[in-house]
Amino acid sequence: MSIDVLQAKIRKLKNPMIVGLDPTPELIPPAMLDAASAEKGKTPDGMALAYLRFCCGMLDALKGVVPGVKVQSACFTALGHAGLAAMEEVLAYAQKLKYYVLIETMRSDVSHIAGLTAQSVFGGLSFGEETWFPYPCDGLVVNGYLGSDGIRPYLPYLSGENPKNLFVVVRSSNRSAPEVQDLISGDRNIFTAMADLTLRWNGEELFGKCGYGEVGAVVGASSPRAMQELRRRYDTLFFLVPGYGPQGGFVKYMGYAFDRLGHGAAITASRAILGAWKQEDFPDDYQEAARQSVEKLKKLLETYVTVL
Amino acid sequence: MSIDVLQAKIRKLKNPMIVGLDPTPELIPPAMLDAASAEKGKTPDGMALAYLRFCCGMLDALKGVVPGVKVQSACFTALGHAGLAAMEEVLAYAQKLKYYVLIETMRSDVSHIAGLTAQSVFGGLSFGEETWFPYPCDGLVVNGYLGSDGIRPYLPYLSGENPKNLFVVVRSSNRSAPEVQDLISGDRNIFTAMADLTLRWNGEELFGKCGYGEVGAVVGASSPRAMQELRRRYDTLFFLVPGYGPQGGFVKYMGYAFDRLGHGAAITASRAILGAWKQEDFPDDYQEAARQSVEKLKKLLETYVTVL
Repeated sequence: MSIDVLQAKIRKLKNPMIVGLDPTPELIPPAMLDAASAEKGKTPDGMALAYLRFCCGMLDALKGVVPGVKVQSACFTALGHAGLAAMEEVLAYAQKLKYYVLIETMRSDVSHIAGLTAQSVFGGLSFGEETWFPYPCDGLVVNGYLGSDGIRPYLPYLSGENPKNLFVVVRSSNRSAPEVQDLISGDRNIFTAMADLTLRWNGEELFGKCGYGEVGAVVGASSPRAMQELRRRYDTLFFLVPGYGPQGGFVKYMGYAFDRLGHGAAITASRAILGAWKQEDFPDDYQEAARQSVEKLKKLLETYVTVL
Repeated sequence: MSIDVLQAKIRKLKNPMIVGLDPTPELIPPAMLDAASAEKGKTPDGMALAYLRFCCGMLDALKGVVPGVKVQSACFTALGHAGLAAMEEVLAYAQKLKYYVLIETMRSDVSHIAGLTAQSVFGGLSFGEETWFPYPCDGLVVNGYLGSDGIRPYLPYLSGENPKNLFVVVRSSNRSAPEVQDLISGDRNIFTAMADLTLRWNGEELFGKCGYGEVGAVVGASSPRAMQELRRRYDTLFFLVPGYGPQGGFVKYMGYAFDRLGHGAAITASRAILGAWKQEDFPDDYQEAARQSVEKLKKLLETYVTVL
């Protein structure tokens, strides 16, 4: 099962970090930006080329260091179709290098629209006799506000041959997360209601040998109380934990996401890694800076978590 | 203000319908599909060409009949970058024909990601001295599960020169909507909590001369109780009302979305219009069939609503 693949990759590298490939113009080293502009102009095409090279360079740099990457589709689609073409190439390259690959769509859809996405991303597009996979990956990060209708179309792809994962935003890490997610309904928060649904979407079947479900939960580390409560109550949900920003906060709370073997969770970090070359305490070489910042975060994490 | 533009277009045509441009292979007339395949092969490129021609044909057919269109981005991105390139052309053509144009992203993001989308879609991409608008439109449909952080980046674009709209999913029309949205928290449902937030995002400033806010609400017509309650409590929120499916249901309940002048709401319909040519009671000509199905739905609506 796919969640076993992720857990095994994490164990092998003793590193539960997933690097977010969320390129923005500010994160690209100026020389790389200039080279792309010289080739394709100061245009969306030029920026897309810079994103492609930067992300592939990052994938080269972190191979064998982190088990997986998460691609933020909004960063690429912000550039229009040239950006999306670059994203497709980044995904293909990440799979070639054997990363565990997630795409963050953050969408919440009605069933027939979710079905189109599931088909395209997981099942493949069959026109005539050929099948296309525009978005090669191991899983998607989605939103569950519309309920089961928008999640069920993905579920058939989470088992069988070439199984995939789905991560549902349960409790996000941003400052305004409580406005909706922390509202109390009966004896639950809305985020626990979402976790209950996530558990239900796993049904009885969708559990890996590692004990975790193929439908995981995004749980931010900004609320230690929420994190502790969720880990205690949902011991079969794999957690994807955002919230490690450039400010480096919340590492202590991230420890709460893991079980006693250091399993069952992965930490995502994006700008802190991609933009490490801009920080004073890292070298100018963006690849070396990324590796060093991963090592630094890993050390910090190891104060609280040891992956066995 | 932009919401005044929408309301004025609706009044001018005496038609509160927004047609959803949600192309799928099944909705394209076979001759059009074959022609595109002959040119570009049975490939994502060929399908994207068919989507482009079909949607532009639909825009030609409904000009002067409906005031606006809503483009479902997932239908296009399902084809990969060729699909997104087609979507960009569809948007540009819709604006050229003076439709009020929405894009449905259904995303819920943290602030810096929402900021990238807001910049790209509303503000434009400025690299060097030129500015690009990959997604020309009048507004976006988004999800609010992550709260204010993911909405605020859009707000500066809702006033000033060339103002835009935002529609937030408050109560969706799908069967599983109640799983999260109807949960009760204190004296509110979650969907009323989302409507309260939507009202707050309009602040004191973002109201058009028509009395409605620039940040509107998506409110499905599948729950008449929810619709009535929301219309009564939020008399300054403009409602975008999905739920008119191929089955033609809920028209009666849609009446509840409008105020006494028949203002303050727009009904969206997609497959019922795009796929009308496939139904027995409409002609084979997809453009004529679309026009007739709009007229039919309009007549049905007029039993309950008259736009003054």
